[in-house]
Amino acid sequence: MKKVAIIMGSDSDLPIVEKGINVLKEYGIPFEVHVYSAHRTPAEAAEFVKGAKANGFGVIIAAAGMAAHLAGAIAANTVLPVIGIPVSCKNTGGIDALLSTVQMPSGIPVATVAIDGAANAALLSIQILALADEELYNKLVSARESGKEAVLAKNKAIEDKFNN
Amino acid sequence: MKKVAIIMGSDSDLPIVEKGINVLKEYGIPFEVHVYSAHRTPAEAAEFVKGAKANGFGVIIAAAGMAAHLAGAIAANTVLPVIGIPVSCKNTGGIDALLSTVQMPSGIPVATVAIDGAANAALLSIQILALADEELYNKLVSARESGKEAVLAKNKAIEDKFNN
Amino acid sequence: MKKVAIIMGSDSDLPIVEKGINVLKEYGIPFEVHVYSAHRTPAEAAEFVKGAKANGFGVIIAAAGMAAHLAGAIAANTVLPVIGIPVSCKNTGGIDALLSTVQMPSGIPVATVAIDGAANAALLSIQILALADEELYNKLVSARESGKEAVLAKNKAIEDKFNN
Amino acid sequence: MKKVAIIMGSDSDLPIVEKGINVLKEYGIPFEVHVYSAHRTPAEAAEFVKGAKANGFGVIIAAAGMAAHLAGAIAANTVLPVIGIPVSCKNTGGIDALLSTVQMPSGIPVATVAIDGAANAALLSIQILALADEELYNKLVSARESGKEAVLAKNKAIEDKFNN
Amino acid sequence: MKKVAIIMGSDSDLPIVEKGINVLKEYGIPFEVHVYSAHRTPAEAAEFVKGAKANGFGVIIAAAGMAAHLAGAIAANTVLPVIGIPVSCKNTGGIDALLSTVQMPSGIPVATVAIDGAANAALLSIQILALADEELYNKLVSARESGKEAVLAKNKAIEDKFNN
Amino acid sequence: MKKVAIIMGSDSDLPIVEKGINVLKEYGIPFEVHVYSAHRTPAEAAEFVKGAKANGFGVIIAAAGMAAHLAGAIAANTVLPVIGIPVSCKNTGGIDALLSTVQMPSGIPVATVAIDGAANAALLSIQILALADEELYNKLVSARESGKEAVLAKNKAIEDKFNN
Amino acid sequence: MKKVAIIMGSDSDLPIVEKGINVLKEYGIPFEVHVYSAHRTPAEAAEFVKGAKANGFGVIIAAAGMAAHLAGAIAANTVLPVIGIPVSCKNTGGIDALLSTVQMPSGIPVATVAIDGAANAALLSIQILALADEELYNKLVSARESGKEAVLAKNKAIEDKFNN
Amino acid sequence: MKKVAIIMGSDSDLPIVEKGINVLKEYGIPFEVHVYSAHRTPAEAAEFVKGAKANGFGVIIAAAGMAAHLAGAIAANTVLPVIGIPVSCKNTGGIDALLSTVQMPSGIPVATVAIDGAANAALLSIQILALADEELYNKLVSARESGKEAVLAKNKAIEDKFNN
Repeated sequence: MKKVAIIMGSDSDLPIVEKGINVLKEYGIPFEVHVYSAHRTPAEAAEFVKGAKANGFGVIIAAAGMAAHLAGAIAANTVLPVIGIPVSCKNTGGIDALLSTVQMPSGIPVATVAIDGAANAALLSIQILALADEELYNKLVSARESGKEAVLAKNKAIEDKFNN
Repeated sequence: MKKVAIIMGSDSDLPIVEKGINVLKEYGIPFEVHVYSAHRTPAEAAEFVKGAKANGFGVIIAAAGMAAHLAGAIAANTVLPVIGIPVSCKNTGGIDALLSTVQMPSGIPVATVAIDGAANAALLSIQILALADEELYNKLVSARESGKEAVLAKNKAIEDKFNN
Repeated sequence: MKKVAIIMGSDSDLPIVEKGINVLKEYGIPFEVHVYSAHRTPAEAAEFVKGAKANGFGVIIAAAGMAAHLAGAIAANTVLPVIGIPVSCKNTGGIDALLSTVQMPSGIPVATVAIDGAANAALLSIQILALADEELYNKLVSARESGKEAVLAKNKAIEDKFNN
Repeated sequence: MKKVAIIMGSDSDLPIVEKGINVLKEYGIPFEVHVYSAHRTPAEAAEFVKGAKANGFGVIIAAAGMAAHLAGAIAANTVLPVIGIPVSCKNTGGIDALLSTVQMPSGIPVATVAIDGAANAALLSIQILALADEELYNKLVSARESGKEAVLAKNKAIEDKFNN
Repeated sequence: MKKVAIIMGSDSDLPIVEKGINVLKEYGIPFEVHVYSAHRTPAEAAEFVKGAKANGFGVIIAAAGMAAHLAGAIAANTVLPVIGIPVSCKNTGGIDALLSTVQMPSGIPVATVAIDGAANAALLSIQILALADEELYNKLVSARESGKEAVLAKNKAIEDKFNN
Repeated sequence: MKKVAIIMGSDSDLPIVEKGINVLKEYGIPFEVHVYSAHRTPAEAAEFVKGAKANGFGVIIAAAGMAAHLAGAIAANTVLPVIGIPVSCKNTGGIDALLSTVQMPSGIPVATVAIDGAANAALLSIQILALADEELYNKLVSARESGKEAVLAKNKAIEDKFNN
Repeated sequence: MKKVAIIMGSDSDLPIVEKGINVLKEYGIPFEVHVYSAHRTPAEAAEFVKGAKANGFGVIIAAAGMAAHLAGAIAANTVLPVIGIPVSCKNTGGIDALLSTVQMPSGIPVATVAIDGAANAALLSIQILALADEELYNKLVSARESGKEAVLAKNKAIEDKFNN
Repeated sequence: MKKVAIIMGSDSDLPIVEKGINVLKEYGIPFEVHVYSAHRTPAEAAEFVKGAKANGFGVIIAAAGMAAHLAGAIAANTVLPVIGIPVSCKNTGGIDALLSTVQMPSGIPVATVAIDGAANAALLSIQILALADEELYNKLVSARESGKEAVLAKNKAIEDKFNN
């Protein structure tokens, strides 16, 4: 199976990113985690990305905050699908990172998820890989079903508490 | 090859969406265009989406404005990758559609592109399909190269004008 | 009397929603509380809503955060009045939920209250039901009067403290 | 049947409000239109509202822009359901009117619709009145059905154009 | 000397408003503090304001949060200068109150100060009263001078710490 | 009677400011208009302001756009009441000018009116001057009354058109 | 004298950038204009920037819109001062470009000017170069003086029109 | 070497500004720190700035919050490069300070860095001074290299933790 790369702009993003790592583990997806900064290690980031396909990666996830250029800088160096996670910060709540990640110019898309939405970034990468992997697709269907069951169980608990 | 579905919330979104349709045509991607509203035809939208995989679709693109629920409503009914295009409107410039599309809860990702970013939505869908299609991948690489050449040509023109 | 349904997108919204539940209790309004997610249990949500009128409901209140589609998804499946409560989150303060709830397209209204405004959502549902229930209407008038008295009492306390 | 009152803060709001008037006419709802300003004629506005129930009104719709106090000022003087239409202006796109209308304090709800959403305001008032009028309810169901058919017809046109 | 009235929309605004009260005390300005809500006690608020000039008031300060209508509602009932203090809340940081206070329609001005800016509201009321009171004017000049000295003293401390 | 000074940051602000000039003329208020820039002529602005009281001015109105420092720079040099008009620009709609004008630090208030609210700025200056001029006060009361009559006339026209 | 480089992300930015070019011409600053895209020609952009010092450049100005990464991508490849011009677009007014340009992480500054502020970007580059060029410094002082005179002339015209 | 001046609007900004002071110390840049308020000590601020060049300063850094006029007020009095640090506050997160600092009118640039970005302000001042100081330039290059090494070390730690 193709691998997923998760790249953080800074290791301080790890608490956010870890939610995505856990999703990948849960699904048994082969993955690598890296710290590359669009601004501090642009050459290393570009080099990693340019070799990504040859090294077996199918999707690249990039997480960054503030003027979050990481996902865009990665997308500029590959035509693999790139998923961007805008990371929140105290002052702006992450609206700067969201706009810096999603408002990409024509020709260089970044598939952007919610502010701090690392779990969904991972899930989206799995949905992409599952196009070529029926078993993985079925796992996603099952997990969606479980998610449904979990909501219904919570519904039941709330109904029991309030509705009789 | 798997097909791409483009769904608009309203046929008034066609001028925006058409830029994406053109990209799909350019790459020779099989696609279908539909108008389903998350609010006016929720059942039809859900039904289409639930059958999408069986009907040969690999990626679904959804374009909607204002409280843009379409992409999320589609993502709720499939584990295929769903790409959301927030459509601008006069009053808010599309920030409402952007937030309504991208801020999805954990478990149901929507791959969001820029406001009115239909061309990138199409390109992203092609990048996803290209994971299983080396020829398509190479077309993307060539197009990226052409994009680069176009910028360099413009650079040359500007340099000639200003830098003698 | 017709019943009020309160639907949360997640049971984590209960602390917000509970303020509305308390208002309904105070007025002796028959009500039910449910957890249905527009994204995780869209079919169950739709099914509940489609049966709502037959099951004796007159108004439906929906609370959700982020890309808050719940109220809109409910409104898409009924012509009963639907009231939306945008729920705040840490990063955006709830402006995403507000825009996702209020900016509905023509034809499918959602009666939106303030961010986290569950008490007012309940009150609004009671105002609607009171159109057919003079006694309930009079209770609302009395409560408004009591609210006025409470402010005047606070005014008196402040005047005593500062204005001798 | 109870009447609907539509109150504008200024007669310059008429082009927006007229879309709501048309909806009320379409459904044969008895209604009155007035111009009262929360700031220029607060006493007249209050007087009208206080007599509204006795004069046969069931719902009051208020449209205003900028620091849009009108809906709130009306809600302060009645326990009838009050629907607020935030009206856009050039500088802010109506976000000021939206926040001024929707962010009401506990105890005094305003059912807020989208910026410039007069048609939905009218529709919401009809949904409220329909709770006591099965025939009106059925008209709403039919109209919703027609709305669905209109989307499906547009879908058919788009499908014919693009999907051969 | 004319009196200043400080009106809060809720006694929960007292911690903010108290900074303004302290300024008025410091300058020996006669003042009264009241709690009137634009929404819960509109008649009482209007009545107080209509009598304000006859009762010796020269300036009215109003503090309110969220859809902050209080200052505007007061301004609607008097041609005395009205100063508005937008009060912050957790979700929006007070931008709703700011827009609701400052974006007044032509004909009914509200002199708006910063979010939570009660001290400046008081100071502004004193500047207005000082137009007719040379002694008060001189106190303002002295206080401004003291403010300058305080900054210069802090500058000295910082210079001593860093610039030797 | 004390004079009003209207200062623009640029003569391109004249179309906005002129609405305020007309109000002052209407009321027969003695006034002067000047162009001083907080950034291009800071010394001249400060000099004018420092002499303002001695030269017979009672209130200073300042209009500026973008990083609108003019009102604040004026307020820094006088304890006369200073009224700020945030002027809109195409890109931001004036929210930059609003925040730059209203968010003043403690000790230096600026009485801020709506974006482009020059008429209200003039009216506010007249309300301030009217504290010492009963005749002017009565003119304001009459004008307010006329404003009310104008709304009621418009109401009558709308009622005639729609309410037969 | 060191040269100034002006880099646009797209030649569609030329109408904005040209205002800066004109300022450089006015001061007789040697400069070059280029079109390099952070996303379409990242390698070429990096290569140009890495050679900039050796090629005689002292300051680099970068103009880009939307997720405006250009200035940051340039700053990542040089320690020369980099000035960023956020370019407006229709939907967002340029707030996305502003945040993407200014919110840079620690270690990689971008000197950001106003949205579409190309003239000031050029002027800032000249101020920087003038640190090593007394003559240029004096030209800046003269121009500032002329700017002052221009405002005073406009002031005179306005004064003549309104103040006698 | 030319000196850097760091000016705070208030000594409460010191915790933010100190990060910039530390950067200047690290590089051995001669600097001075001052507290001058654009509003409380405008004359002292202007006087300091007007003498800045003669007193050996090459760059001036100004930090202020809310309606952050300090950098602009300084830029109005010098043609030395002025760097602005918008300081965050609780209510607005610093967006008011950012807009008040960056949106300067044509002719008076302020080189604006990120909200609370004092370290980058200092670094930018050093980049400017380094144009005339090869040794300093080389220090910047080394520090950039160290920054790269630090990221790569963190990358290594993360890779060791997750990737084998």
